[in-house]
Amino acid sequence: MLQIPTYTDVAAAAERIKGRAHRTAVVTSRIADEELGAKVFFKCECLQRAGAFKFRGAFNALSKLDERQRRNGVVAYSSGNHAQAIALSSFVLGVPATIVMPHDAPAAKLAATKGYGGKVVLYDRYTEDREAIGRALAEEHGLTLIPPYDHPDVIAGQGTAAMELFEEVGDLDALFVPLGGGGLLAGSALSAAALAPHCKVYGVEPEAGNDGQQSLAAGSIVHIETPKTIADGAQTQHLGDYTFEIIRRHVESIQTATDAQLIECMRFFATRMKMVVEPTGCLGFAAARDMRSKLQGKRVGVLVSGGNVDVERYCALLTA
Amino acid sequence: MLQIPTYTDVAAAAERIKGRAHRTAVVTSRIADEELGAKVFFKCECLQRAGAFKFRGAFNALSKLDERQRRNGVVAYSSGNHAQAIALSSFVLGVPATIVMPHDAPAAKLAATKGYGGKVVLYDRYTEDREAIGRALAEEHGLTLIPPYDHPDVIAGQGTAAMELFEEVGDLDALFVPLGGGGLLAGSALSAAALAPHCKVYGVEPEAGNDGQQSLAAGSIVHIETPKTIADGAQTQHLGDYTFEIIRRHVESIQTATDAQLIECMRFFATRMKMVVEPTGCLGFAAARDMRSKLQGKRVGVLVSGGNVDVERYCALLTA
Repeated sequence: MLQIPTYTDVAAAAERIKGRAHRTAVVTSRIADEELGAKVFFKCECLQRAGAFKFRGAFNALSKLDERQRRNGVVAYSSGNHAQAIALSSFVLGVPATIVMPHDAPAAKLAATKGYGGKVVLYDRYTEDREAIGRALAEEHGLTLIPPYDHPDVIAGQGTAAMELFEEVGDLDALFVPLGGGGLLAGSALSAAALAPHCKVYGVEPEAGNDGQQSLAAGSIVHIETPKTIADGAQTQHLGDYTFEIIRRHVESIQTATDAQLIECMRFFATRMKMVVEPTGCLGFAAARDMRSKLQGKRVGVLVSGGNVDVERYCALLTA
Repeated sequence: MLQIPTYTDVAAAAERIKGRAHRTAVVTSRIADEELGAKVFFKCECLQRAGAFKFRGAFNALSKLDERQRRNGVVAYSSGNHAQAIALSSFVLGVPATIVMPHDAPAAKLAATKGYGGKVVLYDRYTEDREAIGRALAEEHGLTLIPPYDHPDVIAGQGTAAMELFEEVGDLDALFVPLGGGGLLAGSALSAAALAPHCKVYGVEPEAGNDGQQSLAAGSIVHIETPKTIADGAQTQHLGDYTFEIIRRHVESIQTATDAQLIECMRFFATRMKMVVEPTGCLGFAAARDMRSKLQGKRVGVLVSGGNVDVERYCALLTA
């Protein structure tokens, strides 16, 4: 029986990360409002520490470790943002961290992880199983494994972003949240259910990897091949047990976005809102744009999940 | 005798722009703090409406027009951020606006100005005098000319950015402000003198055009040729009468930054802080980095003035 986290856990996480995570800006754009025919509030987690919402869950999870666990250290597997978040949280809390990262992770993410003092172990994302590598390292060295999304403390921490958004702008009719493994979406759904029960929460995943959509349709977690998409933060192959359970209870539906739509949104954020947003961070806005006919006159939240993208890759995508 | 604006005018401007201009985010960065050995607070006017602090002064100036002036409309000459700010303010306030722009202005800027409902008058920047055209239009059609920086209401409006910064973070030891014609620097200096009298205010101009530095040294306004720099918002040829007077009273000194330093800062903002900052907007941080040996342990404010730069040009600069 899973111990599903609740909004109480989100509120407790908010206390733990207070003064450690940034309370990120909520920004608005007249142009975005006009385009959608709605009032749009962007919660800017690209401005979060380490460049993504992931710091919230990582810091919350690490804060709950006991003395022995802290001394032994933690291990995490991640394509990037979770790795950096664990590395930075470990650095801040003085906990040794080992990070299992794909060999083709963006150079900026690798460099940043090492910059925070994290020990990096590389693997091939198309042939090796990162979870197995993480578990093996945990057993061999007595490390605590902090999974990237399927963990109550991680989910509770991620929920603080939407919690802050509702605190700042009040009720919303709809909230669009990027979906990879489901940590941010599940946490956001917990906050919405407690703070804005009438708000429809939408998860948004890459069209190339709609395992979330398939899972909701099937009523059980569907596994897929690693999807080929520029949204490298949402290349997960399946939801987690916790995240799936929360998502199927609280999420209205799951939408998808194409890479072309994500690039359009990256351009919009750069030119209109002066923010560097990574492809995955654009999923929410891409879906909101796509659904605009249903959003007329509504109050809409968009979670902008992160901004970690190599400048060279960013510019290659923007100027292609 | 000039009627020099005071902090009272800044405070009044703050009331006028309330709820109309964004109260922009103040962000911090652990990496920036470490690099400077200081606590750095970035006031992000790149996140302001129309992408730059200019909206503050433009909106304040337009708000003070009387009924007849509003009906007749305003005229401004600018190829850049002031034009956008006047066009947007006019749109918001329902005042007809005529913008004098160079015939070879980027299509995106022309389109944006027209998008705000502004009437565009083109001139040939190699053979015609935009100030003369602006004055002629003002006389012929009874329009009110809103200059880009040398106007008490414009200066007072620009001062609200630093005012918000001091309100949010309290006292500072130093504040770095980009310097073109001096509207933002003069306004910031008024706010600092009133709210943080011990804070040293530094203006920062492109090394290629240090007319501000020369003017302070000479004790009178020095005119220069249009400087060749990527900081297109600071290619002014001279300070204004109002701005010079305020700057010489309240500003500690004027620093300079090279184009190479500005590009370095653009990269820093993009990769570390996920913000698109135009070259001119990087002047403050570039000088703070340069002066870091004098800033150890200090609390430092950096005004990031704007983020309006074509994506293609931005990427060309970042990836050169």
